[in-house]
This record gives sequence, structure tokens and C-alpha cells, in this order.
Amino acid sequence: MTYFRKNIDAMAAYTPGEQPGPDERAVKLNTNENPYPPSPRVLEVLRRTDWSALRKYPDPMANKVRDAVAREFGVGREEVLCGNGSDELLRLAVTAFVGEGDALAYPTPTYSLYPVLADIQGARAIEIPSPDDFSLPADALAKAKARLLFICNPNAPTGVWTRPEVVAGLAERFKGVVVVDEAYADFAPASALAAVRGKPNVLVFRTLSKSYSLAGIRLGFAIGPEPLIAGLAKVKDSYNIDAVRIEVGAAAIEDQAYTRATVEKVKAERARLADRLADLGFACLPSEANFLLACVPGGDGQGWYERLKARGILVRYWNQPRLADKLRITVGTPEENDALLRALAARKKETSA
Amino acid sequence: MTYFRKNIDAMAAYTPGEQPGPDERAVKLNTNENPYPPSPRVLEVLRRTDWSALRKYPDPMANKVRDAVAREFGVGREEVLCGNGSDELLRLAVTAFVGEGDALAYPTPTYSLYPVLADIQGARAIEIPSPDDFSLPADALAKAKARLLFICNPNAPTGVWTRPEVVAGLAERFKGVVVVDEAYADFAPASALAAVRGKPNVLVFRTLSKSYSLAGIRLGFAIGPEPLIAGLAKVKDSYNIDAVRIEVGAAAIEDQAYTRATVEKVKAERARLADRLADLGFACLPSEANFLLACVPGGDGQGWYERLKARGILVRYWNQPRLADKLRITVGTPEENDALLRALAARKKETSA
Repeated sequence: MTYFRKNIDAMAAYTPGEQPGPDERAVKLNTNENPYPPSPRVLEVLRRTDWSALRKYPDPMANKVRDAVAREFGVGREEVLCGNGSDELLRLAVTAFVGEGDALAYPTPTYSLYPVLADIQGARAIEIPSPDDFSLPADALAKAKARLLFICNPNAPTGVWTRPEVVAGLAERFKGVVVVDEAYADFAPASALAAVRGKPNVLVFRTLSKSYSLAGIRLGFAIGPEPLIAGLAKVKDSYNIDAVRIEVGAAAIEDQAYTRATVEKVKAERARLADRLADLGFACLPSEANFLLACVPGGDGQGWYERLKARGILVRYWNQPRLADKLRITVGTPEENDALLRALAARKKETSA
Repeated sequence: MTYFRKNIDAMAAYTPGEQPGPDERAVKLNTNENPYPPSPRVLEVLRRTDWSALRKYPDPMANKVRDAVAREFGVGREEVLCGNGSDELLRLAVTAFVGEGDALAYPTPTYSLYPVLADIQGARAIEIPSPDDFSLPADALAKAKARLLFICNPNAPTGVWTRPEVVAGLAERFKGVVVVDEAYADFAPASALAAVRGKPNVLVFRTLSKSYSLAGIRLGFAIGPEPLIAGLAKVKDSYNIDAVRIEVGAAAIEDQAYTRATVEKVKAERARLADRLADLGFACLPSEANFLLACVPGGDGQGWYERLKARGILVRYWNQPRLADKLRITVGTPEENDALLRALAARKKETSA
């Protein structure tokens, strides 16, 4: 006998990337974290604020963060909603738009959380495979009979980026709500925000986990038309953002210069790392994110994953069709990337010796 | 045309208590916050930790907090789950146990979030009115044909407390899962934890918002049998607790002496405030929480609420059957309570003059 709903008993939970313990030394290129620390302003806020006010409830709408986003992105406060990472915003979209038995669509491969969210809701997942070049299957997605469509852009784990006008065109043809999950957009040539502005069915989700170096704080925000934002706000936990994150998030969003600087460093390393990986026989998909999806020589992704792990270098591997011959490698600092390249070169030498 | 599910369009959001802005001076006795600041250890952790590690994802299970809870409550880590306040845990229980159209039961009046959670899920709410003395309608609840039962104990907004053996007896007779929402239990004579230990269908939820003076941080925890905890963990957001809260929460839970000391101060004031309110003609229900539900002379709760607000004193009022002649008053510091008593006495004088 079970107390759980059938779909909950049947589902598997999301699998987060490995996090080594505080005492384990590892070159951590497996969860797309920014290799640089957060803005000094964030650290200052944590050190200097009088936190005795934590005895009181926080602002339920985190308006200080909404206002910072509104200023930075040129939108109104009512067009912004904060979430516990974009993961919460993705869940809120499923809760608000997709009932039990309704459909949620997304291309594959993509962020492995999407099918888990469908499972939790007892919803159907309509999965549209991307073509051989892993580009967005826009025509097939536009025709999907679903209440909600998730597009991760740049896509994870491929890094492939879809141009804003393609996203906007797809949104015009799709009958339900389109969420453009832009977790990695700061590393790409452009956001879809301007192109989708004014469309009543499009939400753009951002996160502070990557470009803002704040994966540890769990803060994301949605930008979209007021009616959609108001509906999502109804279904969120009453106080979904705590008082510390409100201060930290506002400080981080206000320090755009710092974020841009780390993003530029990561992009420069992305280009260098892709070139050097190609020299070693690990061809990468063209990436506009802060990671590379590399095809391993010989096709045994798991073998390479394990050999790297044995040398203290963590990357991400999925035992799945179209991904089993690849590794997803987060772009680290120059030193971390060099450590990876040395490990791959040394191993190749052993193999060919 | 709407993009939302029918139940989402039809529902009203939860209404949080008013939060005055940072520059507004108010005696804030409306949201059951602890009038004392958090433990000095919490403030020290915020000031002293090297937060540059916030660039990395937090531990998805917040095991440092789970371990602190396990040590304090004499349970195993696998019997504990952390949530974004107990509000998240309540939502997770609905998500995990109650499908669309299934039923959730609770006595009334109680925490006004419960019906909102039913609405969000598209579930049915079975509301069992408490008798005239606002005690728990245990027999009727035991027979409710629901998948999940919420019991807030001590209850909000009444403060009425149900003895652990009554809760345990009810849980034995009820066919689904029982959640004992013990947000206020530290102010009561005992927790139900020992009495329900070993029962396969009972979860006890705690929060750091009241007794630990950390409403601003949003942290709660569930204690219960491993299979229920594991199922709730499957449906939570992958990283539901950020890295700051993990450190703050563990520090707060470890400083039990501080929490006990503020709880004792609040309990002493609760007794004094209830006596003085009775002297003024505001009889209170017997409360084992950190607030009092006071009947106002003349029965016009709204009028008294507004008069107090005009004097800068916030309390909580509900325009609802059985509550419209009452005010819920959080127990504040002696000075705050005196300010309230002075305002009530002055107003009574004016009225009788």
C-alpha cells in the first residue's frame, strides 16, 4: 500500500551533478558554475547588513529585486517575478498552465529537469527530437498540441543557440505558453527578450546561478506580460524568496559591470578550450553557453568520464542516446581548463603508446 | 481566452499579513514573528563565512541542517527533510499525496494557506468546523474521506493546543497521511513527535520562523518515516535550500539554549498580556502559541483593528464567521505589549466618556 499518488511513486527524481565535499580537492567542471566568485558588492552586503531584522518575514514579492531587474532590463516591476532559482519558475509554469493529463512539450536533448516536472504534475511530456546538428526543431514544436513549451536557449547540454527571431516566430505559431529558459543567455550573442516583447504567451526566465556566480543563493527571475506574471505569483509559496537573497540578489543585479567582466573571461576561455579540445580530437558542438559538449575519440563517453574523475576532474556524462559519446565540460578558469587538457593529452599518449 | 488552468484562474492567492516599509514605525503584532533577534551565532555566521563559495550549487539535501535536526530531535538524517519554510513542506505534501480532484481535509478555522494549497492543486478541501470552544474535531476528522489531513497544533489563529495522545489517536484512525503542522509547538507544553513516532502515516513540520526568530530566512523541516520523507524529497525543487540558509539554519538549530530563552520570555509575556487584556474586557482563548485570539468588546473586530492601526499598532483581523469579533495579537516585547494595552485602554476611556 502506498500513500503517494501513482505518478509520484512511478517517477524518478532529478539527478543533480556531483558536489564534492568541502575537503575533497577536485577540478569541478560538471555543473556549469561560474569559476569566478560573486561580485564584491554581494560579499559586502552579506558582511555588513544588520541581519537582526531576519526575525521578520521578508517582502513576499521581493520587490527590491524586481525593481533592480526592471531597471536593468527596461521593463515594469509587474512584468517581473522572482523564483527560488529558475527551477522554481519552471515548476510554477507547469503548475499554472498544465493540469494532470495535459501536455508539456520540449525538444530533446535538453535540461533533464523538464521531464521530471511533467512527472511530478502527472502531465504528459511531448518530446521532439532535435535534428542531427542539435538545432531547434522549431516547426515540429510549433505544431505540438501542448499547453506549455519549454525552450532552453542556449540549450543545455548542447550549448546550441537559437536566434531570437526564430524563437519569436515559433512563439507566434504555438497555441500555448512558451517559456524561454535563458539560464545561459548572458554567454550568447543576444537574448530573446526584445524579440518576444509584447507577445501575450511568452515568458523569459533568467537565473543568477551562471553569469552572476550565485548558484549557491538560488535566485532566478521571470520577465513577461503582466497577466502571466500575476498568475504565476498566485501559485508560488507565499514567501518564496528570503530576506538575505533579496539583498544579495539586488546587489548582484545592480553590479552589471562585474557580471559582464566575468562573462567575457569565460567566453574567451570557451574559445580557447574548444580549439585545444579539437586539437586533441575532442570536437565540440558550437556553444554559446558557459560549457562545451565534446565528442570523445572512440565514442566511449563513460570511459573518459571515469578516467577524468580518477584524476580529480569532474565533468558531466549522460548514458543516453546521442549523448553517450560526449562529455559536457564547464568552462573553468584558465588553470582548471589547462588541468583538463593536460589530463586528456596524457591519457591519449598512454592509449597510443 | 486564458492560458491558465481553470482552478488557477478561479482561485484567490494567499494574503500575507501587512509588512510596513523600512521607514514606517509600527508596533508589529500581526504576523506572529518573534520580537527578539535571532541567535548571535546566526549573525556571526552571516558576518564571518567566506561566501565566495556561493558561486557553487548548494548541497541539494541541506544535510548539514538535517544532521543538526537529527541530533537535536533524536532521529535519523533520513527522517528529516528541509523546506523553504514549512509552507514549502505543506505544498510538497499536497503535491505528493493529493491528485487533481482528490481531497485534503482540515479543521476550521485554521491556517488560511491550506485552502489555497488545495486550490492550486485543483484538489477538494474537506473543512470540518471545530466546536464552540475551538478544540480539535478529532472524531469527524478521523472519518474524513481524504488523502491528506492538516492539523495545525497549536492551531492558528486560535492558539488552541491539542494533546499529543489525541493527535496520535486520530492518526491511527485516519486512512491517509496526517501532517501535524507544529509551527508554534515550541510555545506549547509538548510536541506530538514522541507520540506519533513509528506511525507510517504521520509527518511533523517545524519552522524556524517563530521560536528561532528567523521568519526572514524561510526554513522549515519535516520529521517523519523514511518512505514519506523520501517521497517528498522527489518532488521538491532540486536545490530548494540555498547555501546561506544551510549555514544559518544549522547554527540556529544548534543554539537551542538561545531559542529556549526567547521562548520563555514570550510565554511569560503571553500570560501577562492575556491577564491584562481580560482586565480590559478583551477575553482571550487559552493559547499555547506566541499569539492570543482576543474577543473585542462590542464584537466589531474590524473597528478595533482599524483604530489600532491608526495608532501605529498592527494586529490581524479576518472578516470571517467566528473570527469577525476577534483580533489575533502576536505577543511582542513587554514594551510593545504595553503600547497595545495603553492604546486599548485609552480608546475604551474615550468610548465610555
